[in-house]
Amino acid sequence: MSATIHHLGGTGRAPSLDAMFQLVAADLNHVNSVILERMQSEVALIPELAGHLIAGGGKRMRPMLTLACARLLDYGGTRHHKLAAAVEFIHTATLLHDDVVDMSGLRRGRRTANIIWGNPASVLVGDFLFSRSFELMVEDGSLKALRVLSRASAIIAEGEVNQLTAQRRIETSEDQYLDIITAKTAALFAAACQIAAVVAERDESVEQALDAYGRNLGIAFQLIDDAIDYASDAETMGKGVGDDFRDGKVTLPVILAVARGSDEERGFWRDAMEGRRSSDDDLAHATRLLRAHNAIDDTIERARHYGQRAIDALGPFPAGKAKSALVEAVEFAISRAY
Amino acid sequence: MSATIHHLGGTGRAPSLDAMFQLVAADLNHVNSVILERMQSEVALIPELAGHLIAGGGKRMRPMLTLACARLLDYGGTRHHKLAAAVEFIHTATLLHDDVVDMSGLRRGRRTANIIWGNPASVLVGDFLFSRSFELMVEDGSLKALRVLSRASAIIAEGEVNQLTAQRRIETSEDQYLDIITAKTAALFAAACQIAAVVAERDESVEQALDAYGRNLGIAFQLIDDAIDYASDAETMGKGVGDDFRDGKVTLPVILAVARGSDEERGFWRDAMEGRRSSDDDLAHATRLLRAHNAIDDTIERARHYGQRAIDALGPFPAGKAKSALVEAVEFAISRAY
Repeated sequence: MSATIHHLGGTGRAPSLDAMFQLVAADLNHVNSVILERMQSEVALIPELAGHLIAGGGKRMRPMLTLACARLLDYGGTRHHKLAAAVEFIHTATLLHDDVVDMSGLRRGRRTANIIWGNPASVLVGDFLFSRSFELMVEDGSLKALRVLSRASAIIAEGEVNQLTAQRRIETSEDQYLDIITAKTAALFAAACQIAAVVAERDESVEQALDAYGRNLGIAFQLIDDAIDYASDAETMGKGVGDDFRDGKVTLPVILAVARGSDEERGFWRDAMEGRRSSDDDLAHATRLLRAHNAIDDTIERARHYGQRAIDALGPFPAGKAKSALVEAVEFAISRAY
Repeated sequence: MSATIHHLGGTGRAPSLDAMFQLVAADLNHVNSVILERMQSEVALIPELAGHLIAGGGKRMRPMLTLACARLLDYGGTRHHKLAAAVEFIHTATLLHDDVVDMSGLRRGRRTANIIWGNPASVLVGDFLFSRSFELMVEDGSLKALRVLSRASAIIAEGEVNQLTAQRRIETSEDQYLDIITAKTAALFAAACQIAAVVAERDESVEQALDAYGRNLGIAFQLIDDAIDYASDAETMGKGVGDDFRDGKVTLPVILAVARGSDEERGFWRDAMEGRRSSDDDLAHATRLLRAHNAIDDTIERARHYGQRAIDALGPFPAGKAKSALVEAVEFAISRAY
């Protein structure tokens, strides 16, 4: 088998999730069946609200990663269907709670559940989906998968609280910020990939490699999201542009601009992050500062670094459709910034 | 062994949780250690906020039930310590989310976490404790205990959403109401008791008996809470009196008063539950209507019915300190109304 060295940005056409989607299409149908079946409840509001988000244009990125990683390991069973659905439920639960926490109004181009049904319903349906995800894992019966996903869930919540603590604080360092997104975003990507090795009953080193792939992809993914929030419009992004700015979220673009800026600029950032400058003009000024200091490009460059590490983590695995699809998923994550 | 027939209200002195507390004191110390250790996090806000509620005067009713039921079964191990802590974490997580949902300001006589730290922190720390509870269960390693508690968690969330749906609807029937409180309150009491049989590795009939004890106790407990909300003051109750009234929560006292009232009275209840009459005078009028229709006394009577069923579920177990303590816990639950 010839060694294939993958480098980011090597392809001519625009990268997409199509290859991954085709690779796992049949499995994903099963996962979607589990998701639709298990979000049901006699309490009508639950499937109504959950369905809004679950049926509402999500890419199923995380369950697809579980499925594609299982394919990479030539796993031929079906155990990963329930676990992939559990991963999507955890993700959906955190989205519902995030929107309450951020008081968001728009996600994936649609009005958020908390706007339509109110915060109480979003909190409680999130709790339901979270509980349901554990029921699915228990049905699978792997204590190891349960350990991986319950640990990831606790880390996600820790990361979210940490982010809340850092909110509006321009003193947040790049390291602190990386800790936050490693927890709140990358932990679930990592767990989604790692559980493929668990169901395929592969050894520790395989688990670690897939964990590293998922974690680095997740970090890259979040960094690109943070860059896009200042560099896109609501239509392409699917959520309101400048949301992070108005929420006082000190993301990496801001951290870089603060570090590289003058005292006067730091004064502006402090006012902005603390909520005293949040108009469209202020956002335009912020974007100009970010560009002047290359803060957006360098955030994307940081993302490429983690993307490359994700690809390199796949080194030990044989070339083939699954590996190519996983590599292209990284390229896709990065390409969203362009 | 002579059969002891227990009837509610048979004791001379005021019932309390003292006997149960003494029975399980040593175990409860271990559980408290687990709780304090496992609510820690590098993110300082987590132990700060969680500690406010966990250290803040909770009776540890649910973990004590796990411990007392284990004692009833002569279980001599320590596995139930982690599981009892997991139960308390689930309970604390639901309290944090409940206070956000209800926009409460006072619980157990203290300001609620959402008032002090805000709704976002309460939502996210609740999520953390919930995840942590599953980590504790996974460490125990019993898939059966995981099944019981993940099922209970999903049922609790379903019950909370169902309650949200019923809120402000005076058409809510007694049966619907019983479904709601069986889910939102009694399911965790039942699970807390049932898992004692799981760790003690007793057969299905023992699990079912403890489940029935806990479930009926939980229903009685909630009915008394609902009665107290109209019949107590903030000091004895530890939360604001009339909260249910102002929140438009259609609890059993209201359901009975609506069923027994005139058209004019139903008009009042509709206005009140829909939020158009929520002054202190309105609450005083509501309380007068409840008393005129014996709605509070009969709610307490319903609670006694479930309390008696809880006691009778203990029938198969041998007399002794553990059984007496569990019986007295029921009597205590009921006695809070007097």
